[in-house]
Formats: sequence, C-alpha cells, structure tokens
Amino acid sequence: MKQDQINPELIPFLPLLYIAWADGTLLPSELEEIKRLLDEQDDLDKTVRAMVLKWLNPKSPPSASELIYWRELICNHSNLIKEKDKLNLFEIGKSMSTDQEGYFFNEKTKQFFENVEACFGIVTKEALNDLLHPERPDFSENEKYSKESFSAEQMSLILEHRFSGIKERVRTLMKDSSFAFDDHSREKKAYREEVLNWTKLLADQGFGALAFPEKYGGSGRISDYAAVFEEIAKYNLSLTVKFGVQFGLFGGSIFWLGTKQHHKKYLNDAGEAKLLGCFAMTEMHHGSNVRELKTTATYEPGNNVLIVNTPSEYDKKTYIGNAAAHATMATVFCQLIVQGKNYGVHAVLVPIRNEDGETCSGVTIEDNGFKLGLNGVDNGILHFNNVEVPVENLLNRFGSINSEGKYESPISSDSKRFFTMLGTLVGGRLCVPMAGLSASKKALAVAVHFALRRRQFGPSDQPEQLLMGYQTHQKRLMPLLANAYAYHFAHQFLISAFEASGENEDTQEIEALAAGMKALSTWNTTKTIQECREACGGKGYLSEMYFDELKADSDIFTTFEGDNTVLLQLTARARLGYFKNRFGRMGWFDTLKYISDISTTGLTELNPIVVRNTSDEHLLSDDFQLAAFKYRESYSLRTVAMRLSKRIKAGVNSYDAFIETQVHLVDLAKAYIESIVLEQFVRKIETIEDVSLKTALQLVKNVYALSTMEAYRAWYLEHEYISPKKSLALVKLNKKLCKEMSFMSADLVNAFNIPDYMIQKAVQF
Amino acid sequence: MKQDQINPELIPFLPLLYIAWADGTLLPSELEEIKRLLDEQDDLDKTVRAMVLKWLNPKSPPSASELIYWRELICNHSNLIKEKDKLNLFEIGKSMSTDQEGYFFNEKTKQFFENVEACFGIVTKEALNDLLHPERPDFSENEKYSKESFSAEQMSLILEHRFSGIKERVRTLMKDSSFAFDDHSREKKAYREEVLNWTKLLADQGFGALAFPEKYGGSGRISDYAAVFEEIAKYNLSLTVKFGVQFGLFGGSIFWLGTKQHHKKYLNDAGEAKLLGCFAMTEMHHGSNVRELKTTATYEPGNNVLIVNTPSEYDKKTYIGNAAAHATMATVFCQLIVQGKNYGVHAVLVPIRNEDGETCSGVTIEDNGFKLGLNGVDNGILHFNNVEVPVENLLNRFGSINSEGKYESPISSDSKRFFTMLGTLVGGRLCVPMAGLSASKKALAVAVHFALRRRQFGPSDQPEQLLMGYQTHQKRLMPLLANAYAYHFAHQFLISAFEASGENEDTQEIEALAAGMKALSTWNTTKTIQECREACGGKGYLSEMYFDELKADSDIFTTFEGDNTVLLQLTARARLGYFKNRFGRMGWFDTLKYISDISTTGLTELNPIVVRNTSDEHLLSDDFQLAAFKYRESYSLRTVAMRLSKRIKAGVNSYDAFIETQVHLVDLAKAYIESIVLEQFVRKIETIEDVSLKTALQLVKNVYALSTMEAYRAWYLEHEYISPKKSLALVKLNKKLCKEMSFMSADLVNAFNIPDYMIQKAVQF
Repeated sequence: MKQDQINPELIPFLPLLYIAWADGTLLPSELEEIKRLLDEQDDLDKTVRAMVLKWLNPKSPPSASELIYWRELICNHSNLIKEKDKLNLFEIGKSMSTDQEGYFFNEKTKQFFENVEACFGIVTKEALNDLLHPERPDFSENEKYSKESFSAEQMSLILEHRFSGIKERVRTLMKDSSFAFDDHSREKKAYREEVLNWTKLLADQGFGALAFPEKYGGSGRISDYAAVFEEIAKYNLSLTVKFGVQFGLFGGSIFWLGTKQHHKKYLNDAGEAKLLGCFAMTEMHHGSNVRELKTTATYEPGNNVLIVNTPSEYDKKTYIGNAAAHATMATVFCQLIVQGKNYGVHAVLVPIRNEDGETCSGVTIEDNGFKLGLNGVDNGILHFNNVEVPVENLLNRFGSINSEGKYESPISSDSKRFFTMLGTLVGGRLCVPMAGLSASKKALAVAVHFALRRRQFGPSDQPEQLLMGYQTHQKRLMPLLANAYAYHFAHQFLISAFEASGENEDTQEIEALAAGMKALSTWNTTKTIQECREACGGKGYLSEMYFDELKADSDIFTTFEGDNTVLLQLTARARLGYFKNRFGRMGWFDTLKYISDISTTGLTELNPIVVRNTSDEHLLSDDFQLAAFKYRESYSLRTVAMRLSKRIKAGVNSYDAFIETQVHLVDLAKAYIESIVLEQFVRKIETIEDVSLKTALQLVKNVYALSTMEAYRAWYLEHEYISPKKSLALVKLNKKLCKEMSFMSADLVNAFNIPDYMIQKAVQF
Repeated sequence: MKQDQINPELIPFLPLLYIAWADGTLLPSELEEIKRLLDEQDDLDKTVRAMVLKWLNPKSPPSASELIYWRELICNHSNLIKEKDKLNLFEIGKSMSTDQEGYFFNEKTKQFFENVEACFGIVTKEALNDLLHPERPDFSENEKYSKESFSAEQMSLILEHRFSGIKERVRTLMKDSSFAFDDHSREKKAYREEVLNWTKLLADQGFGALAFPEKYGGSGRISDYAAVFEEIAKYNLSLTVKFGVQFGLFGGSIFWLGTKQHHKKYLNDAGEAKLLGCFAMTEMHHGSNVRELKTTATYEPGNNVLIVNTPSEYDKKTYIGNAAAHATMATVFCQLIVQGKNYGVHAVLVPIRNEDGETCSGVTIEDNGFKLGLNGVDNGILHFNNVEVPVENLLNRFGSINSEGKYESPISSDSKRFFTMLGTLVGGRLCVPMAGLSASKKALAVAVHFALRRRQFGPSDQPEQLLMGYQTHQKRLMPLLANAYAYHFAHQFLISAFEASGENEDTQEIEALAAGMKALSTWNTTKTIQECREACGGKGYLSEMYFDELKADSDIFTTFEGDNTVLLQLTARARLGYFKNRFGRMGWFDTLKYISDISTTGLTELNPIVVRNTSDEHLLSDDFQLAAFKYRESYSLRTVAMRLSKRIKAGVNSYDAFIETQVHLVDLAKAYIESIVLEQFVRKIETIEDVSLKTALQLVKNVYALSTMEAYRAWYLEHEYISPKKSLALVKLNKKLCKEMSFMSADLVNAFNIPDYMIQKAVQF
C-alpha cells in the first residue's frame, strides 16, 4: 500500500491494522475474532471489508516501510486528541477520517472497535501510547524526585555528635595536597611509602596518640581516636589500617599491656610515629585460636633475658601489618616460660629492624606479597630464631618476672589472665567495624546519587524513569541505608559504653557486644558495597566510582580482629556466661536449666490477636518491634540452653556439646546483637527534638526493623510469633516504607559527609 | 604454698582447689556451697578442713606459679588414670594420695566430691580434661576426614560429558609456557598485550571459530565453543572475556546478523583473530534499554553510504571490550534511518582503526581506564562524528536497503525484528554464566581443600579440629558446592536445547530461560566466591589463593550481558507471554485472568497430612521436592497475573502495572528458574547407572533442593505449604545432609578438574 494509494475509506481502519501488526505477528485466533466482528458490521461496505481483510492476511503482511508510514499518518492525527483518556481505535480513526460526520462513526462501530481492542488486550493501549510520542522533557536534576523533609546538615550533627569538630579537622587535613589519593594500588612499593608518609602526617596533627593519656599527647578518650579512624576510612582504607596498626595495635599494646616504664620509654615515640611498630599475634596455624599459639619467650635467669623463638615454620607470625617494610619493633605474643613452666600468652617487645632498616640478627622477615586489597599496608611474616631481648621488654602489666627471677601476676588463673589481657585490646574490635561502616556509607552515597541521576526504561509517553523510582531498586538500597544508620548509632553507643566502663569493671558484656557487633556490622559492609556496585551497573565497575577500592580493601574486615563466625560464638557463649556469673551458685548444667526456665517464663503465651494483627500502626510501633526482636533473642537463648543441657546431661563433653550447637549459637548471637541495635536506635530517636529529623529517623528505624524481621520472617513463622498473613502484611508495608524512604535518600546520604569528589562521577555522566 | 610445703593431707583436695581457681574467680555463692559441703563431712579432720578453707579465701588466692605447680602435680597423677570416663575429683584425688587405703576414700567422700563437681558444673570436666594434655597426634593429611565413595574421575566424565576431549585439549594448551599466568593485573598495558597474544594462540588452535560452520573453520556447534569458553575461565577471566568479545560477540554478530557476503568477507579472519573487532552496543545512557539507544546510521542514497553518528556526549558507546587498544572494526548498534524514517536498531560494521593502529577519521576512542577487574581487557569509549561507511556494511540479515535505496525486511514489525535480532545473540548470555560457574568451582576447590587441611580449636585432649568438621563450615560451603553441580547440569541442558532448536523455531522460551539462568547463576558465583574467600580467613586474602582475581574479574558478570534484575523481569514477562502466545485468542487481560484460573486449578487443595509430614523419606523424595518447587512457581505466576489484571482492569496502564508488580515478577522468575534447575538435576541423575555416582549426586541434589527450600521457607510458611514443624525438620535434615556431603567434598571438587597449581597454596602451609 503505497502512501498515495490509500483508499480514503480504509483510513479509519488504519489504527486497527497498525495495532494488529505492531508486535509482528497476527495470530490465527486474533484474525478469526476480527473477521467475526467485521461480519457483524452488516452496514459496512463490502469493498471496505474486503480491503481490511486483505491487509490482515498473514501471508502478505505489510512491509516495514508501510508500517512506519501508517504510524506516521496515525501520529499526525492522534496528536489532535489532547485527552489521553480518549485515545482509542474509534477516536483516532474518527479523527483521521475525511468523512467525520458520515455513516461510519456511530455507536455500533464504536462497539466494534472496542471489541477489537478487547481482543488485542493491553497491547492496544501500549501501542497507541507509542504512537503519541510527545516531546520528552529532559530532567537532568533529581529535584522532581527528592522531597525536602529535613536538613542534611542537622542530621549530620546528630550522626557526628560531639565529634563533629575533630572530624572536620580530619576533613580539612585530607583536602591538603599532601593527601593526593591517586590510584596507587597497583604499584605496591610506592603505595606503601605514600601511606607511611600520610600516617606520619596524621601523627604530626596529634591524631595518632589520641587514645593515650594527656601526658603522652592524647585526650585519653578512645572515642576521639575512633572518630578520627572512622573519618579517615572515608578517604583511604590502607591508610586507615596502617594508622590502626601503628597507633591502635602497636601503641595500644604498649599502653594497655605495658607498665609505666614502657609508657615513658615508648609511648610518645609510638604516638608520633617515630617508633614504628607492629602487632605480631597471628601465626600461620593459629589465627583465631590465640591461646594455642606456639611462639615462646623463655626466661634465662643467668643474663636476665627472654629468648623469643619460633618453634616450627608453621608458627611464624603472618599477615603482620607494618612488618614487611617499616616497623622497627614488634609486640610479639608468645607463651611465656619461666623456670620451665608455661604461664600462657604474654606480649614481648622485640626489635626487628635497626635504624637503617636492616633486619635484626635472628629475625627473618618475609613479605606477604600482593593481597586482595589494602596493598598500601606492608603485611609480612616474622620468624624468630632464639632472639634475645632484655626481660624489661616483657609488657608486664598482667604478668612479670621479679628480681628473683620468679613469675608474678595480679591474676593467678592462666585463663582469666589471658582473657583479661585480650579484653584490654577490644578497642580494635570496636574501631574496625566503624571504618567498615564508613566504607558502606561511601558506597551508599555513590549508589544513591547514581540512582537519582540515571534513567533507564520508562512508560512510552514519558521520559525514562529514574533508577530510584523502581521498586526493586528501592528494596535493594533502602534497607542497607537503614542499616547504616542503625549500626552507626549502635557503634556510638558501644564506644561510649566502653569508655565509660571503669578499668576494673567487668567488661565481659561489652566485649561480647563488641565481638558480635563487629561480625554483623562488617558482614553488612561487604553486602552493602556489593549491592551498591551492582546497583550502578557497568559504571560501578569502573575504578572512578571507587567500588573497586571499597570492595577490595574492606573485604578482610570480616576476618581480621577475629573471624566473624568465631566471634559470634564468643558472643553467644558470653551471653550464656552472663547468666552463670549472675547466679554463680549454679554449675553449668543448672545455669542452662535456669536459662531455659526463665526464658520460658519470659516467653509469655502468645496472644492470638497480636499474632494476627496486621495493622500498620501495630507493625510500626516501637513496642511491637522491640518485643519481636527481644522474643527472638530470648527464645534462641532458651533453645541453645536446652540443647546444651540435654547433651551435657547425656554425658557429652562440653566441647562437643557446644560444637553440636554451633549453628544455634550463631543464631543466638545475631538475635542478641540485632535486638541491641534496634533498642539503641529507638533510644537515640527519643533524644531528638526536631520534628523533621525525628520523623525521618523513625522512618529509617522502621525500615531497619521491618527489613530485619522480613529477613527472619521464616523464624517468626516457624515459631508462630506471626501469622502467615501478618508476615505478608509486614513485607508489603516494608516495600511501601522503602519507597517513602527513597524520597529522602539524597539527604540521608548527604548527612554522611562524604567528600564531593567521590560522588562526582556518579552524578556527572 | 611452696612445693615443698604441701601437707600430704591436703593433697587429695588439690584437684578441687585447682578447679576452684581455674577460671580465675571463686564466686561467693560457690564458696558458700563448698563450705556447706565441707561442713557435712563430719569425719573430716578439722585441721585439713581449715587448710582447705584457707586456700579458698578470695582475699588471698593462690599465685600464678602455685596454680601451675598444682597443675603439674595433678597432671602427673591423673595420667595414671587411663580411662577418661573415670576422670573426676574423687578418682584423681585418690590417685594422688599417699594414703590410698585410708579413711578418706569412702562413699561419703565420693559423694562430697560429686557434689562439688555439680557446683562447678561442666567447668570441672573441661578443666580436668585440660589437665590431661596427652600427646597430640599431628594429622597432616585429610584421609581421616574424607570417606571414599565414588571416583572423582568418573564424576568428571559425567560433568564434562562429550566435551571432555576438547576440554582436555584446552588444559594441555594452557600448560604450555606461553600461557604463564603471572600476576599482570596491576600493569594494565602489558597485561592487555599478553591477553591479546593468548587470544591469538587460542585462535591458532581453531578454538575461536568453533561456533561457526565448518567452512568457516568451526564445528557449527555452539556447545563446543561454550565448553572451551568454560574451560578457559578456570585459568584467566580477562582472557575468557577477550575471547568472548572477539569470537562470540564480534564474530557472532557477523555470523548471526550478517549475510553470506559478510560471512565470506570477514568470518575467517574474525575466527582466526586476524580481524580484531568489538561489539559496540551499550551507550553511556543506555545499557539495558538497547531499544532506545541513540546512535544513528542514516542512509544517503546519493553515494549509497550510511552515516554513523553519535548525537550527544551521553550517547557514546562505552565499556566496549577490545575498543581501547586492539580492535580495527566495530559492530555498531544504531537506529537505522532510511528516507527520513527510523527502522529501529540495526548493526553496522564500522572500521575504527587502520592497520597501523591509527584511529580512523571521525572516530574518537577513549580508554575506560582501570576497572575493578578484568584489566587485561581493553574497554573503551567510542564516538562517531558522521562516519561514512558503504551500505554493504549494514549487517542485513533482518533488514536491508535495496538497490532502489528502500528499506526491506523479512520482518515488518519493528518490535518483532528487534527482538528477533537480539534473540540471535543469546549465545553470550548462555556462555557468561558458565564462565562464572567455572570461577565458582575454582573458589570451591580452594576453600574445600583448605578446610580439609587447616585446623583450628578443638577439644582439649584432642588435636585441633579440621575446619570442615565444623557445622558452620559445612553449612557455609556445602549448599554452594551443591549449587555448582545443579547449575552445571542446568547450563548443559540449556546449551543443548539452544543448539537443538531450529533456526526458525520460536526460541522465546529458551531466551527467557537463558536470561533467568544467567541472573541466578552469576549471583550464585558472586556469593560463592565471597563465601569461599571468608572461609579461608586471612589466608584467603592473599593473592596466592586466587580469590582476588576471582572476585574482581567475575564481579561484572552480574551486570554484563544484561543486568540481572532487568533480566529476571524479562524472564517473568516471557513466562506470561508464553501463555498469551499459546492462547492467542485472548488479549492481555484475559490471558492474565486465564493464568490465574488455571494456576488455581493446578494448585490443588493442600493435603494437611503432606503439609505436616516431616519424615526424612518424604523430604528427600524427588516427588516432594519437585512438587514444592513447581508449586512456588505456579503460585507466583498466579499472584503476578492477579496483580496485573487487577491493575489493568482498574485502568492502570500496562507499564505502570508491570512496574508496580516488579518485585513479584522477580520472585516469579526465580521460582521458575529454580524449578527448572531442580528438574534437570533429577533428570540427569536418572540417566546415571553407576551406583556410587548416583548415590553421591542424589545427596548433592538433596542439598540443593533443601537448601533452596530453606532459603525460601518463609514463602512456604506464608502460603501454608509446609507447617512450622516441617520447616524446622527440613532445616535440621539439611544440616545433617551437609555434614554427610562434607565427607565427600574433596572428591566432589576434584571432579571439577581445577589445575593443581591453583590449589597448591591451599594445602601447603
């Protein structure tokens, strides 16, 4: 059908014909139906009917250029129809016809076209919309998406709390040209030197010594140190880790495990990065199981020295940061042997390099080589071949060798001494996940801004849709953004609690919390960064978007300062131990029985009305959420206690009993930590007065609570805490909340204070 | 208490005293209880009683060296007690006493010590075990763990099927010194040249042209090509992707979209890597939404040429593999405009570099720079400024410009033509996840061997325990190992089905399957590699363990060849479309209604006995598992259909209706794919005769089925398909299966044929 050959009488049918062929195939059943409908149009001219049918013959479909020409013709006319609702085959046909008042456009024909539309179904509507092609406005800004609800700066003050001053100092410093965070990660040697140089610059500002007492250059507050650490993590994680190794681990070991003599001699130099050191704990065959490490320090009374020795090649210290290139001294963890007796793990300062950088006699240093990430940190392997150090090098706060050459300790029990020593080192476990969280915030800021800029697909008569407008995208990013807020407040709580706890107080509960928080928080970091990378598609794979560094550098966070799975078991055991300590009269068996009893009492009969209550008000209430989280924890505690006591009663030894209950211990620890996180979030919100901030945080808290419950809804269903309908209602409501939250997502990530240049590539493309 | 001062009468109490202090603290309640028990011992000498109490005074606890001395004394004696069961305070005390026949060791004292033990609870047992310290055998082999059940070589033949010959050829080639897979990833330029060189070596062996017909150097079987691609992926993913870009995408586009003239002119050279090319589809603002890409090819009748043009900077082709350094030609996807009309997306061959490597006039090439991974592939950005190419460069299988300068196509509808063209390119989508799966297999082989070698923690009188012996480790790795098998068979099925489908057959169902499989399989790859890295702890972070390359290089697989979330929606829409095509008479609305009706019929009333059946036999039966997977799919299909039809009935346009149902579409697609995967696994097992292989694969299949159900058990509970108790039983049974499977894990990964040198570092340390 050439364009000059179209019979005017056929014109009203063009829209029908176009639609019929629009998806390329006219199915026999469709054809039959249209034929039938045409037959019913008895007042239709037979010639016209034949023409229409001719163009509906599957054996001679219209050509591609004919189809396009039809579309043009139809478009020209359908543009006349301003009201989108009126867009249908009948109206378009009518507007195209030269004989608009003629016989054709009666009620019966209208019915005919409506029947045809029904036959083609929704394809019609879509195809008709396609025809319209109105001009597409180009939204290059995301203003249309975001809703103004609160001030990002005010939110930032809530997040940064009393640390905003010191954090701002870090940010100012990082802008200095000395910190040019170019891409060094592929040239190991130069990168390591650069990172060392930056570490010294940070020390020059007094940041390194912060956690030490004032007389050693610090503020005496570990929370200040943590705030700096957290802020540096937004810039470069190799620097963060080097900083942590030098000041937190090496300096910290001298401060926490040493005594006045060590503080006087070393602490200033360590805090100023003049004395570079490393923290040699992990051995090739002993990572998590520190108590069983094999390196020895044997006291020789004759010349009053300690002989530090690595018994076999499997016992070399490995993955030791600062060891491969820079440290001149190492805090070496070893079994202390005095008069032929092993007093367990102690720390000894061992020089490993002289001032010229030459390796000390008896020490062998290897390089761990390239790593998945953090290649700005020089991890190495240390081997000691009977290295002699003065007895004064023993960090002797918890165990010393007296002038008579005898071992002395304020803590008699090897076991208690070991855990007390390790307990003082909990600072690392508190800080590492905070750095990880900074990395997540960076990833979220990039992904959220990208999603508010990038468009893809869309309705046919509209500009393409913002990624953030998609349900799947909201469900992907918002729960992780909520986690970032939730974990942020929990970490703040934890570091304050640790700081507030007196030196002699029993910090077991804080240690248990720190272990569990570290595990969940760092796993959340890995997950968040991965999800954000994927949410930025191919663009997210380019180094310019920072995901490569973020992923690679933060990956080890789930392992160092304790493997996450091991840590969670520690948390769970401590949780059980908490009850044992509180009710010391009981042995383990009775403790377990007791826990299972009190938990049962706590787990009051479930109210069937509550189990089935699906109202938004109920699901969004703090009461419901807190109770649900607490219930999971108490129930898990009881389950674990029952399983353990059953086994112990049956004569299984406690090691095996715990091993057989491992998966449940991990579940208990997760439930416990998540309950604390929610509780702290709720408490934090209670302290906020500004309505807009409070409202925003409530929404974020609700997304955290419901997303966590959604993830564990199988548990709640298995334990009949919620009915199947309530579970579905919860998921549905959470979807709605994620959408609401997405409207404020820009402000929520802006409050993280991520430097602009990092987000630049996400919004300019 | 000096060692020479111990009163002999106190000796029987030493074990008690040691235990009392072993954990460092004697609680007031414990002390009180012991006092009470001592009081009851009325025949106990008052002096002895006083001595015991003196040593129980919390104000003067024993010193560390005293405790250690006690331990030694006790150890020496308790070694006499051979039977572990008899180890208790009474027996040890008795064995230590010099007066063994004396008054002390009567039934009453025995009762006393038993009561003390009860007071200390399980701590006693542990501490007593600690005392024993028998010599620790050093298991350096994992023979004790693994159970011989089947031949790994035989299993390998099942996996490799008829491709074991060609795969062995690849393995032999890769051993050649030309392929020295050193660590190049940090020096981009050299690495790219090396990868190009390797690609040419593969072409020299005839591997590049495999998918092409025999006259162009191939076997005409895409499955052969895929087998090679899959095998290369075990060595180096940059090479794999370069290989795929050159032969699969560039060569493939000429083969599938071109006609005889193009085949004759280019196919041999492309297959031999003499003509290097790239596949320029993705644009800066159009990744997934290919149909809306903006590059144009405008026909100029005067000189019979096409003018290829990039309208704006946002429309540049980006992430194009082989573009930044090597390709001399590009298959450019663009909107074809003939006589002022847009005929939609077509592919045009555009020279981009001359033989000297100089960029052609009008073409601008930029480098995408460093990427998260795959830095051996030169991804680049292409900009065309009205570049003129002869009209013959149009790959004109589905659309050509005739001698009169008119557009012609065997497919009239733009839409159908577009999908048909893209459909022919499904090969990439089939192959990419297979390469990803090879990467997962490598990660699993490393992690499994590490877990069978590395020990950590353990019962106090035993050697430390193998990581694989831990529940948490089994639950971590076994479901992923099961996935590797399940997806392997599913990919094999899919590629065979694709190969078997005739050229003119409707391949829509295979395309839908390919899209969904690609999404789930590549996500599984990302997850598997991450989990394996973490399961190897700090060691897993070293580059020598390959996780860095594996993680970084495979990360983009979830994005390229289609973003996974977009692909799943495509799968779901196709699933709905399948019904529409089968019952063409219906419009969309009726189709949706129909689906919801037939699904309801299919979803027969759930049998309450089955819902509650928790027997192992039932849970492990193919029937139960297949029905459960199928039910989830059918139910999801109905849900989606109901949601869509509700909206469409209410006048929502179809775009919005689909968008509002997005999350459910994704769920449907997952359910559909997982159901196919299980079905194919079951079918594969049916074909196996060897009992040992069949039994092993049944276990693996069961772990796949139950782990998948475990992951979706919230869904099954919400839809009351299983009772809460059944859900718990399923989880418990799966834990047991994972343990069983762990015993054969070495053979299961050995069957993957991962080169030894890659696993070396995991077993030698």
